[in-house]
Amino acid sequence: MNPTATLLISCPDQKGLVAKFANFIYANGGNIIDADQHTDFEAGLFLTRIEWLLDGFNLPRDLIGAAFNAIAQPLGAKWELHFSDTVPRIAIWVSRQDHCLLDLIWRQKAQEFNADIPLIISNHPHLQEVAAQFGIDYHHIPITKDNKQEQEIKQLELLRHYNIDLVVLAKYMQIITDNFIQQFPQIINIHHSFLPAFIGANPYHRAFERGVKIIGATAHYATVDLDCGPIIEQDVVRVSHRDNVDDLIRKGKDLERIVLARGVRSHLQNRVLVYGNKTVVFE
Amino acid sequence: MNPTATLLISCPDQKGLVAKFANFIYANGGNIIDADQHTDFEAGLFLTRIEWLLDGFNLPRDLIGAAFNAIAQPLGAKWELHFSDTVPRIAIWVSRQDHCLLDLIWRQKAQEFNADIPLIISNHPHLQEVAAQFGIDYHHIPITKDNKQEQEIKQLELLRHYNIDLVVLAKYMQIITDNFIQQFPQIINIHHSFLPAFIGANPYHRAFERGVKIIGATAHYATVDLDCGPIIEQDVVRVSHRDNVDDLIRKGKDLERIVLARGVRSHLQNRVLVYGNKTVVFE
Amino acid sequence: MNPTATLLISCPDQKGLVAKFANFIYANGGNIIDADQHTDFEAGLFLTRIEWLLDGFNLPRDLIGAAFNAIAQPLGAKWELHFSDTVPRIAIWVSRQDHCLLDLIWRQKAQEFNADIPLIISNHPHLQEVAAQFGIDYHHIPITKDNKQEQEIKQLELLRHYNIDLVVLAKYMQIITDNFIQQFPQIINIHHSFLPAFIGANPYHRAFERGVKIIGATAHYATVDLDCGPIIEQDVVRVSHRDNVDDLIRKGKDLERIVLARGVRSHLQNRVLVYGNKTVVFE
Amino acid sequence: MNPTATLLISCPDQKGLVAKFANFIYANGGNIIDADQHTDFEAGLFLTRIEWLLDGFNLPRDLIGAAFNAIAQPLGAKWELHFSDTVPRIAIWVSRQDHCLLDLIWRQKAQEFNADIPLIISNHPHLQEVAAQFGIDYHHIPITKDNKQEQEIKQLELLRHYNIDLVVLAKYMQIITDNFIQQFPQIINIHHSFLPAFIGANPYHRAFERGVKIIGATAHYATVDLDCGPIIEQDVVRVSHRDNVDDLIRKGKDLERIVLARGVRSHLQNRVLVYGNKTVVFE
Repeated sequence: MNPTATLLISCPDQKGLVAKFANFIYANGGNIIDADQHTDFEAGLFLTRIEWLLDGFNLPRDLIGAAFNAIAQPLGAKWELHFSDTVPRIAIWVSRQDHCLLDLIWRQKAQEFNADIPLIISNHPHLQEVAAQFGIDYHHIPITKDNKQEQEIKQLELLRHYNIDLVVLAKYMQIITDNFIQQFPQIINIHHSFLPAFIGANPYHRAFERGVKIIGATAHYATVDLDCGPIIEQDVVRVSHRDNVDDLIRKGKDLERIVLARGVRSHLQNRVLVYGNKTVVFE
Repeated sequence: MNPTATLLISCPDQKGLVAKFANFIYANGGNIIDADQHTDFEAGLFLTRIEWLLDGFNLPRDLIGAAFNAIAQPLGAKWELHFSDTVPRIAIWVSRQDHCLLDLIWRQKAQEFNADIPLIISNHPHLQEVAAQFGIDYHHIPITKDNKQEQEIKQLELLRHYNIDLVVLAKYMQIITDNFIQQFPQIINIHHSFLPAFIGANPYHRAFERGVKIIGATAHYATVDLDCGPIIEQDVVRVSHRDNVDDLIRKGKDLERIVLARGVRSHLQNRVLVYGNKTVVFE
Repeated sequence: MNPTATLLISCPDQKGLVAKFANFIYANGGNIIDADQHTDFEAGLFLTRIEWLLDGFNLPRDLIGAAFNAIAQPLGAKWELHFSDTVPRIAIWVSRQDHCLLDLIWRQKAQEFNADIPLIISNHPHLQEVAAQFGIDYHHIPITKDNKQEQEIKQLELLRHYNIDLVVLAKYMQIITDNFIQQFPQIINIHHSFLPAFIGANPYHRAFERGVKIIGATAHYATVDLDCGPIIEQDVVRVSHRDNVDDLIRKGKDLERIVLARGVRSHLQNRVLVYGNKTVVFE
Repeated sequence: MNPTATLLISCPDQKGLVAKFANFIYANGGNIIDADQHTDFEAGLFLTRIEWLLDGFNLPRDLIGAAFNAIAQPLGAKWELHFSDTVPRIAIWVSRQDHCLLDLIWRQKAQEFNADIPLIISNHPHLQEVAAQFGIDYHHIPITKDNKQEQEIKQLELLRHYNIDLVVLAKYMQIITDNFIQQFPQIINIHHSFLPAFIGANPYHRAFERGVKIIGATAHYATVDLDCGPIIEQDVVRVSHRDNVDDLIRKGKDLERIVLARGVRSHLQNRVLVYGNKTVVFE
């Protein structure tokens, strides 16, 4: 795989944007291999993702940003630049359940993700052994009502120490404070319901009580409003009166693994553009 | 199709229920063609549906209920008895949208339902022509804030006059009062969201604002708590950032037609057993 | 809705294509509202769809093609140009089943499609009444083993007489000859299976015999190889041992209507680009 | 969980079967906790699954079969009797891919399955390490064109030696001979397509070439006709022109794990009744 550069751009809509962005790549000898765009007419926003081969591109990597900004700034555009051979570093946070953790590790080893996983943080000691088996550092940071503030300081220090780019809450059953999220906003969470149904605790129990015929899972960015962040991916599975709460939990595990994996993969491929409280997922 | 009888039974769980109910049919010369059961262990309830051929059954129809009651009463069972050649009479209630109405009529003509549709009630005049085309009586009963009580009296009179067994709210965009529901509880509604997400008004607009990746529809029995009645059927369809509110409404129409049709069909085949705020749908 | 122009382009892959095509629009004052692309690296093909507002575009409509060709020809590109306010004319072909026909007519009336439906052709007289009800001309052209050749001449004459742009085989249960397809290649068919499973006749019966747990439907362009043309859309529904052949047919009808409607809509919005025996459906 | 007994019965249809079977349980003091039935009217067969608590049942386990046979034989019924606390022994067969193997092991450890997995057989050495990690014996039995017959003898010996009840072909990429299947017929295979589409080798490559919009996976019993055995479970996932063969393979892995797991779980819960070339899966 030849390395690529990817621009994610959101810009007030106006004539000529596709041409201007494409010309920037072409004028510097770049070959676009993927480009997609979306216009949100209500928001008046043009949103695009452009990926091109670095091979043969005339600008050195460290100058691309400044050069593109000369075009973007007059247009009022916000943008991110990513290189496909930069390997993001993920911290996986867990509680007691192992299914999402094992699934993410397996996918990373199977090269479905381009990422390193140097760190697991948990409020429980249970999954220490899984970490050891795969040679990943495991930090047990128990959370009580009284110690959350100081423990979050420790967590933030660990993220800095390990140079973490992305936190994945892989069934981490604690609420993250606003303060934490403001300091480290790159967090993907898996919620075990079809949001906005069953926001909050015990969604499978509440789904059972409500007698729904379908259950779901939602991968979303964590924000200060619990379970209300931008949704990246959702999926569902059919249930019936024959399924008790344990069945919902069992069926839900398969959903959670797949939905979380898809969300994380889209993020790692720089396919997710957040604007307002929504996402564009360029497929 | 030979006519059949169907018993829907809910009974405190105890030993020997399957044998007792099956013996009742067999002792009277009946041939069971479909039997299904479910035990809700939490509720301590045994729920079953038994369908058998009337051909060769030794009890005349009008004696079956009393004979079965002699078995059911000592067990504390509640039961309903239905005959497959009794054709239920449906009133379809609509507002301005025609897709669910046309779909139900088409299915009835295609013999997917065994039912008569002698009556359409609407708070608007718009679909008069559809009714005329299919020879169905159409009653335009406009609803304002002030006249709902008296109009509901008219509606109830119509239901009685037409001998209606089931009201289907096929995108009827008015709230039915508690008083009405208590007097006529056999009502199936289609809600244009995946309940309990987006209870209340404008679910597609709210789904769009929330940025969900999947939308749904729900067929449920109407109860005094709005959008909280027992769910019969749900289904979903995938959406993306490319779908605006109009796209959600368009995609939702296909969901609404299919989910409502499945719910109505299950009800008409006497496959739905309501207990508490849940349903068992015997497939 | 302001009128738009749409280019569908397939071109040997090379640097600068996005820029060249976007510049053509921008240089003439056009505002791109939707652009999507796909590169098939195996085939070495760049495939794109670009839609822009005609309002404010400096080239008159009748000159756009020639002007674009000056760019396209040196690149070896094939292209189609469409205007959103050109209303395509559809002939729907049916046999005895009405569900796809009624569904297409309803969607056209509900403005899900931008198309006229002036003509229905059938090898049976059964649906004459439906045509009359909606004011559509109905031509009954019976097909026997011996008369197919001469009847196809009549059919082709009708397509010419009515200025038909697209034939939709909405459960037309006759094989179209190669000769016909070569003379009128714009044909969308709905096949009642998940192709390539159950190519040929009686797919529901064969699905039942094989004991599959899921059935499907496929919308595809008709080609000289029966049931082997480029697939536009497919969908599926779950079945079980409880479903007999009649149940498969009933469930399949819902699939057929929806899959055919999606395929026809994508085609009418000029979102389908055929290359080789495949389609790119730009969503 | 209290231990249960389960009868799977197929019987020529006749009056009184439900009563007779239920009476057998009741007369011996059994409490039925799950009963389901299906009548295949074409085949004239009554198929049922009855599960009851052994606690309080008056017959000792080793007499149940003989006692039931006294009822079953006059009816011409075939039946199987299973006890829920008998732990079946599974041999998993693999080639080089680990995803189905790891998934089955994880589910067994998570108690989704009640089974032991003492043996892994592979035609490759690659997954030896996985086996070691979980303490499972691994036998590498390479297969060439010339040695298949003698190697199958070794495989059969291993199955006998380990007292294996069920072979799961978890992406074992070799054809099993008729001779083997006749000697050991309890084999579940996962095929990486939506059968009967893409029977045989390289289904993902062929799906890509055909341009399908949905791919699938199928869990089925292995029979002497390759990929033609009774289907237990199928599921599908949507793909598009953006997915190349590697994407199909990646998406397919998730399907394969889930479909195989569902099929194996249904089998282990004695919910699958095979008749002719079909299954009834009692849910």
